[in-house]
Amino acid sequence: MDFKYAKRMAHLKASEIREILKVTERPEVISFAGGLPAPELFPVEEIKVVSRIVLEEDSARALQYTTTEGYTPLRKWIANRMNARLGTAFASENVLLTHGSQQALDLSGKVFLDEGDVVLCESPTYLAAISAFRAYGCNFIEVPTDNDGMIPGELERILESAKRVKLIYVIPEFQNPTGRTWSLERRERLVKAAMKHQVMVVEDNPYGELRFEGAALPSVKSFDQIGCVLCLGTFSKTFCPGYRIGWVAGDKNVIEKYVLVKQGADLQCNTVAQMEIAKYLELYEIDDHINKIREVYRRRRDLTVQTMEEEFPAGVTFTRPQGGLFAWVELPANVNARDVLEKSLEKNVAFVPGGSFFPNGSKENTFRINFSNMPEDRIVKGLKCLADVLREFV
Amino acid sequence: MDFKYAKRMAHLKASEIREILKVTERPEVISFAGGLPAPELFPVEEIKVVSRIVLEEDSARALQYTTTEGYTPLRKWIANRMNARLGTAFASENVLLTHGSQQALDLSGKVFLDEGDVVLCESPTYLAAISAFRAYGCNFIEVPTDNDGMIPGELERILESAKRVKLIYVIPEFQNPTGRTWSLERRERLVKAAMKHQVMVVEDNPYGELRFEGAALPSVKSFDQIGCVLCLGTFSKTFCPGYRIGWVAGDKNVIEKYVLVKQGADLQCNTVAQMEIAKYLELYEIDDHINKIREVYRRRRDLTVQTMEEEFPAGVTFTRPQGGLFAWVELPANVNARDVLEKSLEKNVAFVPGGSFFPNGSKENTFRINFSNMPEDRIVKGLKCLADVLREFV
Repeated sequence: MDFKYAKRMAHLKASEIREILKVTERPEVISFAGGLPAPELFPVEEIKVVSRIVLEEDSARALQYTTTEGYTPLRKWIANRMNARLGTAFASENVLLTHGSQQALDLSGKVFLDEGDVVLCESPTYLAAISAFRAYGCNFIEVPTDNDGMIPGELERILESAKRVKLIYVIPEFQNPTGRTWSLERRERLVKAAMKHQVMVVEDNPYGELRFEGAALPSVKSFDQIGCVLCLGTFSKTFCPGYRIGWVAGDKNVIEKYVLVKQGADLQCNTVAQMEIAKYLELYEIDDHINKIREVYRRRRDLTVQTMEEEFPAGVTFTRPQGGLFAWVELPANVNARDVLEKSLEKNVAFVPGGSFFPNGSKENTFRINFSNMPEDRIVKGLKCLADVLREFV
Repeated sequence: MDFKYAKRMAHLKASEIREILKVTERPEVISFAGGLPAPELFPVEEIKVVSRIVLEEDSARALQYTTTEGYTPLRKWIANRMNARLGTAFASENVLLTHGSQQALDLSGKVFLDEGDVVLCESPTYLAAISAFRAYGCNFIEVPTDNDGMIPGELERILESAKRVKLIYVIPEFQNPTGRTWSLERRERLVKAAMKHQVMVVEDNPYGELRFEGAALPSVKSFDQIGCVLCLGTFSKTFCPGYRIGWVAGDKNVIEKYVLVKQGADLQCNTVAQMEIAKYLELYEIDDHINKIREVYRRRRDLTVQTMEEEFPAGVTFTRPQGGLFAWVELPANVNARDVLEKSLEKNVAFVPGGSFFPNGSKENTFRINFSNMPEDRIVKGLKCLADVLREFV
């Protein structure tokens, strides 16, 4: 049969990461490719306890359908947490639970994007956000970006001239893929520009809790005076990703629209998962747990940066992230990271070439390094091996 | 701020059911409104066991990210189950796990529907399928339907003349909202027409396992010779809905497209839920459990039909479903079920008016009765009360 797909299917291709991850399932492969948290840090014993309690105390509710908005005690906790950490002023009604923050990206596309609308994003930006938005037929304009975030003059120039800009998508903390963090000034200028041009900002913050050093900065949202910033968050990096619980928080009128589209998309999140996380947050100190994650990732980050400094050949530059899961490597302009990957896979070392993180395609001389998922000896071994490969190219 | 939503948002409205369900949270309300399974039938003790085992044996995998396609042992089980019961010939590669079968509806819209495309559906049809497809800007043609399914002559006439038909959406077993089941002949003629016109069929089957009497019939898919039928299923009615695990099965090329759009939509299903269900299916006989559900729902169906026969005034007709969760009531043409609902809510009895189940709007003299969720005494009490209200109108 000649399957007649929707037009959008012509633009969608398999995530390069997910394809590489399939290769890296072999245990001998040292993989810097995924964005996976360290599984040895999952709070397994605590999850056993809360899982038992939820089923003992409230099984009829935990296994049943619930509201689209999500379990109120969890939404309340999220609102309080954001208010305390990020300078926001949310109530539970401002929060919709989503099936991971990936779903919040998809719903953002569905709520705001018509075919031909424009999304502004950092250059480079998160690969799966590109896929999520692209499914709604949008175009991207990549805003030039340096170590402090989008360059305000460039952003303002684009907002003055570009037509049909609907969303500005940013990851201000320990960005995926670069590991960079926006300065305070850039956050404020972003919101000023968005307010002036009445454009929505999607502030995606999956890694913000994983700061290794330096002082936390107020969120982009904290500067918002008109409801133009939506905040995305997730338990995937601070708790565990298997539960698929994330959220979007923002102006109540907008969140009501998200609820409507979530109804049609999948009715609601997994009820058990919502209640188990809420019970965990009630019985345990998640900050103690997050501190453990921070310490382990900090050591891995230190080792990653140190090994790259010691081993990578001259001409190769990289970021020194203050938190999160990723560092970003730039090769001389004439080197294609896909060629490097081909060689390094032969030596059982994997990473993600950077080209896919640019929605309009460019900078093939870049790649992303994940440092959260592997024990220290494998990080060093893998980076040394990768350095050998790089010396063939640089 | 003046929020500039996507055009699709103008067509989306809150599900009437979900709005009514909010009213019915008061414990004194006798509600025939939802589609909720009976919570006292959830296999709680077994779930406690499998939840403990999965976390004991395989926590690093259960709490981590997994593939978009889903947990292979569970996909294999689903393929085998469908092949044994429904006359299909699926392997695990034909099955994609989805966040409830509601997500499979949403993904179907995303894979196939461009703005202005046409979906053919039964008249009436499942409310949340209308919302899911409508988000992609499609139009609906309601195919006239009787007790045996879509009327083939009408379907064929529409396929001959209508432009841009992309999907035919059907629920052949114990349909939501009518409780009707398609005859064998109608299933075969549907597929013949779909093959002739090269149109995809989405065969949604959430209730098929809940047959109270009579012999099971081969699925619509079993007549498909060209890969034009996609099968949707779910564990929500045979296990529990809180886990949000459903599936779509079909031609491998098409399923690959679904995998692509699921990647962008939410990456993957809840890993723990997938593994717990797979462990449950390994350790227990789900047929024993389904038989228990069938027995309880059969008695509730019997009592529902019997009470309606005894109590409802002349001029009110209703279906006598052979399975599933719902019966469908038709009032004299001049009576509006929304007016009846207003009166019956005053007496703390709720149901869903039928109008919303017609995508193009009509038949306001109908309503849906759910009989799965309440104990027998409340069913009788509620229907007697509803009969009193009906006598004011008929």
